[in-house]
Amino acid sequence: MNNFLSVEDVSDPMILVKAAINLKKDPYADSAIGKNKVLGLIFFNPSLRTRMSTTRAALNLGMQVISMNVTQDSWQLETADGAIMDQGKAEHIKEAAAVMGSYCDMLGVRSFPTLTNREEDYSEELINAFVQYGSVPVINLESATLHPLQSFADLMTIEEHKRVEKPKIVMTWAPHIKSLPQSVANSFAQWMNAVDSDLTITCPKEVELSPDFAGKAVIEKDQDRALEGADFVYVKNWSSYNDYGRIYDDESWTVSIDKLKNTNNAKLMHCLPVRRNVVIADDAMDSPNSIIQNQAENRLFTAQQVLKTIINKL
Amino acid sequence: MNNFLSVEDVSDPMILVKAAINLKKDPYADSAIGKNKVLGLIFFNPSLRTRMSTTRAALNLGMQVISMNVTQDSWQLETADGAIMDQGKAEHIKEAAAVMGSYCDMLGVRSFPTLTNREEDYSEELINAFVQYGSVPVINLESATLHPLQSFADLMTIEEHKRVEKPKIVMTWAPHIKSLPQSVANSFAQWMNAVDSDLTITCPKEVELSPDFAGKAVIEKDQDRALEGADFVYVKNWSSYNDYGRIYDDESWTVSIDKLKNTNNAKLMHCLPVRRNVVIADDAMDSPNSIIQNQAENRLFTAQQVLKTIINKL
Amino acid sequence: MNNFLSVEDVSDPMILVKAAINLKKDPYADSAIGKNKVLGLIFFNPSLRTRMSTTRAALNLGMQVISMNVTQDSWQLETADGAIMDQGKAEHIKEAAAVMGSYCDMLGVRSFPTLTNREEDYSEELINAFVQYGSVPVINLESATLHPLQSFADLMTIEEHKRVEKPKIVMTWAPHIKSLPQSVANSFAQWMNAVDSDLTITCPKEVELSPDFAGKAVIEKDQDRALEGADFVYVKNWSSYNDYGRIYDDESWTVSIDKLKNTNNAKLMHCLPVRRNVVIADDAMDSPNSIIQNQAENRLFTAQQVLKTIINKL
Repeated sequence: MNNFLSVEDVSDPMILVKAAINLKKDPYADSAIGKNKVLGLIFFNPSLRTRMSTTRAALNLGMQVISMNVTQDSWQLETADGAIMDQGKAEHIKEAAAVMGSYCDMLGVRSFPTLTNREEDYSEELINAFVQYGSVPVINLESATLHPLQSFADLMTIEEHKRVEKPKIVMTWAPHIKSLPQSVANSFAQWMNAVDSDLTITCPKEVELSPDFAGKAVIEKDQDRALEGADFVYVKNWSSYNDYGRIYDDESWTVSIDKLKNTNNAKLMHCLPVRRNVVIADDAMDSPNSIIQNQAENRLFTAQQVLKTIINKL
Repeated sequence: MNNFLSVEDVSDPMILVKAAINLKKDPYADSAIGKNKVLGLIFFNPSLRTRMSTTRAALNLGMQVISMNVTQDSWQLETADGAIMDQGKAEHIKEAAAVMGSYCDMLGVRSFPTLTNREEDYSEELINAFVQYGSVPVINLESATLHPLQSFADLMTIEEHKRVEKPKIVMTWAPHIKSLPQSVANSFAQWMNAVDSDLTITCPKEVELSPDFAGKAVIEKDQDRALEGADFVYVKNWSSYNDYGRIYDDESWTVSIDKLKNTNNAKLMHCLPVRRNVVIADDAMDSPNSIIQNQAENRLFTAQQVLKTIINKL
Repeated sequence: MNNFLSVEDVSDPMILVKAAINLKKDPYADSAIGKNKVLGLIFFNPSLRTRMSTTRAALNLGMQVISMNVTQDSWQLETADGAIMDQGKAEHIKEAAAVMGSYCDMLGVRSFPTLTNREEDYSEELINAFVQYGSVPVINLESATLHPLQSFADLMTIEEHKRVEKPKIVMTWAPHIKSLPQSVANSFAQWMNAVDSDLTITCPKEVELSPDFAGKAVIEKDQDRALEGADFVYVKNWSSYNDYGRIYDDESWTVSIDKLKNTNNAKLMHCLPVRRNVVIADDAMDSPNSIIQNQAENRLFTAQQVLKTIINKL
């Protein structure tokens, strides 16, 4: 693994999951391999779990971390080739990425989509510019369209909690008040499709995902029918891909305990942050079947496994 | 000590003070005990001394630190139970605290009061939520009503500078242009009351502290009479507790050298930041009797003593 | 070296350059000398290269770093002596600098000029206050009028790339849309003047530098004539010193490949961030003669050399 941009950078996701489960048993076993290595974490957008878990993961390996909130700590970056930079952006990504790469041994980058220009967002120009100009391995801390660190933790959590070899996994859309990226949903589908899984995606037709990511998943428009017999229910909101960035609002999709009654005593998942009683009702959030905190906790071990894998290739 | 929320978490404050005085002589003596331990510092409000001194304290013990400015680095947190989260707050403290706790070995939390709702502020719901959901020791970096790291440093500084066994300590209110919390004053009174001390509090009747914290201190409305014979004069502004959050403005309470003339050559204290020539006049700030910088410097050693005590119980 | 405020703190710049070139070959050779040392980085203004390179430099020496964005992490600081602090500034630099110094073994300070009051800017009151009240070595991370860490890296880069003993170095002004400090230009001239160099400065008469910094450099108003035979072309915008802070705008000064045609195959330099196609055209930025990234990379090794020199004197 040279970069960690998507599941496509992972030769065998299940081997990586098993390595992370193993690492979790003794997180300090490799505390010397990061000596004299520095991870740069570059944030174009806010972050809580990703920031803290990736930082802790690096520290557990003996690395040090330099975090930059780009728009607070420095200034706006231009990404357009050939731009006449006489507006608000003070530096081109070509220079900034090269410079950051020269001070760090690897770079993590978080950058949300605009949700106004689909072609631009799906071209992933910003994180690709870090790969092109940064000259060090790049880790996706959630890009315009994908969130592979989250999906890796999701897969690990399913592996830890599954009661049958090939559980029925249902990812259900749920309502939200803001226009959110498709990245978590795209990425979860992409990882599930990359392993031998039984994935159903249920959502209103207005918010269908790009087929590039939905892939071979079963698409079921009826939420109740989709949830029947589910072993894992992954709840997530995302805005429209087709009517790009549009908020679709249907409160009947909020996931509550009642909604889960015909599942196979399903474990409840969400990547967080979650708006309680909008996306998921309190009764489901606080039920013993919620493994949402386990997902969050596994962010640490999966990030650490990614960093470890990259260090071993440096 | 499992948490450090107030003096009530300390079995014997004077033993802790003596331990900190001892630690100050050789701050690197315990530089191995924090290995593989990470302190999370969670800021809902600005901080200079607390941020830097607590970070340095952790580093001196071999710990690492992850700092989060909640509203800049991530997003607003909801604290109300059962809230329908369809407004500005993207995550509930229940999830956030649990997640932060899972990435850190202990959490420090700074969160100022609203000063608009006394019942809410004095319930200390935010820091208590970290205790309830965080599952790791919690350190108060100044909460709505208390600032125990400051008071511990204040007590240590008095111990270092006292010339008689039981000095007369006077905490005097002073004017300010903004509505400030009662936390430093509450906490200082609480710590002084927890040890064998001679404490007088002087302030206009409009800004009397809660009797829960003032406790057995002598209350004297006449500033000049209060200051007579004082060995230590602790200056601090706070807003009204009774007419909650109201600014009381009386420039005649500003502390100057002239005000201190009938003290017993008193040492001058303040927690900082201080507005010169509003709270304390330049002549007093710059007098050789000021031990304000000593207080600030002791923030490092008292924070380190708190972290050390908690690590030893982990 | 007690402080690193300008080239005047350096006894022999060329010896320091050679030490940095040597350090670059093995950046981890001194990874133990910073043990138990903490560098405080205090930012009154944004920073990318300086922040990251100085942090990495400290880590390479085994130091730890505490960064503060003053106006985000804490509050505004008053610098005026005798001020009645009843306005927006909550703490005086006298207290803040002393406190920061008591928690750190050295302090780096970044603070841009106002560009509205020349006398005030050129008095360098803020960084001087850190020297006066901080009681630890102070490193200039770019002050109102100077940027010695940049100039040190510039000199190192010239030393690495020069093809003749005493190359012709031309610093040319170039246009910009904003009012920028004179600090990089002042400082570059000051360092070049401190060593045996052949420096020409070319700029419109409206933006001539202070003679205190231009010193013995050749001043040539005709950009084409100045560039003839140049071995190094250092491009930089700055606002007017005489009509203080005024933007001077003349697009004919933008540096492109065509502009460089009569140079001696000159290496192109800029401190970054650079606005492409305003200050320097893409064709020059992307030409093989650009050593701009080398300059940026050398910021790490020169910062490390400065920290190392200061540690060795502690």
